[in-house]
Amino acid sequence: MHMNYPLLNVPERPAKPRQSGLTMVMDKGLSLRQVEDFIEVAGVHTDIVKLGWATSHVTPNLKEKLALYKSAGIPTYFGGTLFEAFIIRNQFSDYQRILDQYGMEYAEVSDGSIEIEHDLKCNYIKELAKQVTVISEVGSKDAAKIFAPYKWIKLMQAELEAGSWKVIAEAREGGNVGIYRGSGEVREGLVDEILTQIPEETIIWEAPQKEQQVWFIKLIGSNVNLGNIAPAEVIPLETIRLGLRGDTFDFFLNQTK
Amino acid sequence: MHMNYPLLNVPERPAKPRQSGLTMVMDKGLSLRQVEDFIEVAGVHTDIVKLGWATSHVTPNLKEKLALYKSAGIPTYFGGTLFEAFIIRNQFSDYQRILDQYGMEYAEVSDGSIEIEHDLKCNYIKELAKQVTVISEVGSKDAAKIFAPYKWIKLMQAELEAGSWKVIAEAREGGNVGIYRGSGEVREGLVDEILTQIPEETIIWEAPQKEQQVWFIKLIGSNVNLGNIAPAEVIPLETIRLGLRGDTFDFFLNQTK
Amino acid sequence: MHMNYPLLNVPERPAKPRQSGLTMVMDKGLSLRQVEDFIEVAGVHTDIVKLGWATSHVTPNLKEKLALYKSAGIPTYFGGTLFEAFIIRNQFSDYQRILDQYGMEYAEVSDGSIEIEHDLKCNYIKELAKQVTVISEVGSKDAAKIFAPYKWIKLMQAELEAGSWKVIAEAREGGNVGIYRGSGEVREGLVDEILTQIPEETIIWEAPQKEQQVWFIKLIGSNVNLGNIAPAEVIPLETIRLGLRGDTFDFFLNQTK
Repeated sequence: MHMNYPLLNVPERPAKPRQSGLTMVMDKGLSLRQVEDFIEVAGVHTDIVKLGWATSHVTPNLKEKLALYKSAGIPTYFGGTLFEAFIIRNQFSDYQRILDQYGMEYAEVSDGSIEIEHDLKCNYIKELAKQVTVISEVGSKDAAKIFAPYKWIKLMQAELEAGSWKVIAEAREGGNVGIYRGSGEVREGLVDEILTQIPEETIIWEAPQKEQQVWFIKLIGSNVNLGNIAPAEVIPLETIRLGLRGDTFDFFLNQTK
Repeated sequence: MHMNYPLLNVPERPAKPRQSGLTMVMDKGLSLRQVEDFIEVAGVHTDIVKLGWATSHVTPNLKEKLALYKSAGIPTYFGGTLFEAFIIRNQFSDYQRILDQYGMEYAEVSDGSIEIEHDLKCNYIKELAKQVTVISEVGSKDAAKIFAPYKWIKLMQAELEAGSWKVIAEAREGGNVGIYRGSGEVREGLVDEILTQIPEETIIWEAPQKEQQVWFIKLIGSNVNLGNIAPAEVIPLETIRLGLRGDTFDFFLNQTK
Repeated sequence: MHMNYPLLNVPERPAKPRQSGLTMVMDKGLSLRQVEDFIEVAGVHTDIVKLGWATSHVTPNLKEKLALYKSAGIPTYFGGTLFEAFIIRNQFSDYQRILDQYGMEYAEVSDGSIEIEHDLKCNYIKELAKQVTVISEVGSKDAAKIFAPYKWIKLMQAELEAGSWKVIAEAREGGNVGIYRGSGEVREGLVDEILTQIPEETIIWEAPQKEQQVWFIKLIGSNVNLGNIAPAEVIPLETIRLGLRGDTFDFFLNQTK
């Protein structure tokens, strides 16, 4: 799909809509024309777009932007921090109303910036799942809050059971918390242990840095679900998935031998 | 203003034109269409745009670009390095002429790359203040030239007395000199000491890195004046000012309790 | 050329087309409108555009994009990794066909991701030089593969003799391999030794980081050939070449004294 040359033995990518091989992109304030440009170049490679954290609150062109993505067949959702901003103010019903008002079909439930009982978080997932498709996020935005692997697994399992379509492993825009060390290095033991218990196609790994994308593609394959990809990095990521950038060039050649 | 949801207890931002809470943006070579896109998304949150250092010298679309910003009600000025390039060549009167020729209403006076007697710098401020609104900058672009806090204060005071509307604390595009260490870390003692003597609303702190913005917002509040913000970072900065990004989420909640 | 002010004693830049002072830009997935914006601002300062590695394979708008650059008089070529992807699959004749099919006038021959006998690489240069203007690249994308200076010289000499118009010194998009250490620092001894044997105007130094650009401009002058420049960094680079940014402000003033 949308490959210009007759190159042989390139890894296969499933067609959209797909359950694995997802690319989730972060829009943190694109203009309408920039959204059109993004769709022209990267729309075919993009599965879903997150309007990062609460940026949608201060973006003048919100309705028009959502309409543009919709007309290109790309679902959108508001970042989890927006959900948390409503929850901490006891405005959950207002949040449900704005989801309707903007015609949202997806919503994120997270607790990256607030403390919340996990049962209560799962209740929000259940409640919102009646209204939209829910994506929930595990992991704190606070670099000092580190969970043991068994806890990540327990939280992810409970959220999937509560009705999350996918669970996101937290990294922020910078890729320096959650499943990563402050340096951006992957907490490899954590990821390995999560994968012993949680089906890999149900997880979206936030991986904004190239080295993080490469690491996950080498571990799980071309069709790993990756998130927090910057708009201009979707084309580069697609080449890494296909073994057509230096970083995975050898890796996929050795696999197809 | 331009907030899409009924979120309660969000810090207030004064309407433009304002004396504090300024966001100064650096344009280092946007096309006309990119300027239009920027204005669409971030114009309402932007107080003034600097055409970085001497980039305006080699930009083909200068007159049209200045007209675009003007029609959106956003003042512009040429970076201080351009002023210095004219001064070091003994072309001050040429500089005054180009300010007129391009209809500039603001100008920056700096000595980040040249050595100049401070009395002479203040004379340039006085002279240009007859023609335009002057912003002056304190601090060297040379990482090896570090001034003691009392000197920063003395220079800032003299420049404000000479007629500067605001003084800028130097950081460059990278945020790694002047009020910051090479690592980007704030020279906290320096900032604290400056604030004992200089009214905070008269200072614009260059703060290109997110951590620097967060630090100043936590110190001074939502309505601190910040500069050298990249065009695509104005929306993210606005959410940090409002406590709607992870970095200041707790901070403002605790304040409104 | 395209300088807006009557600034005296600014270093001269030759007019395009030129053999030295080249700026080679990396396009890793621009939309058509972004290409138009780039040309508007930076076209006059850009000598040649590389469609990075194999990004052209997954870019939906390839033919239209190539036509846009062509109409602006800016030559283009596909990144060397695309050449290597065809070679490793024994599809060299397919590669020759796509060069024709897309009307390419330049091609890169590299071995950054594959192992190939140097005689064979030179044969590819000879063969392609019958069809297009060849640029060849020396240096591995693998940070662990470090060549001694005499080897760089030998490879460059052989490739120029085989018919390369220019040789590129490898750095990748990140600027952290080949002629640089992992930190981005220049391997100064290596560059010095290369320059004792290879004419500087035949080399394009990949230099994506500002500090790397500054280093080469101070070593070789305003009109050094630099590559892997990001589209938004062409205007900033041009000011560094002209001594109109802090980094080279003093350097060129001292030269013209």
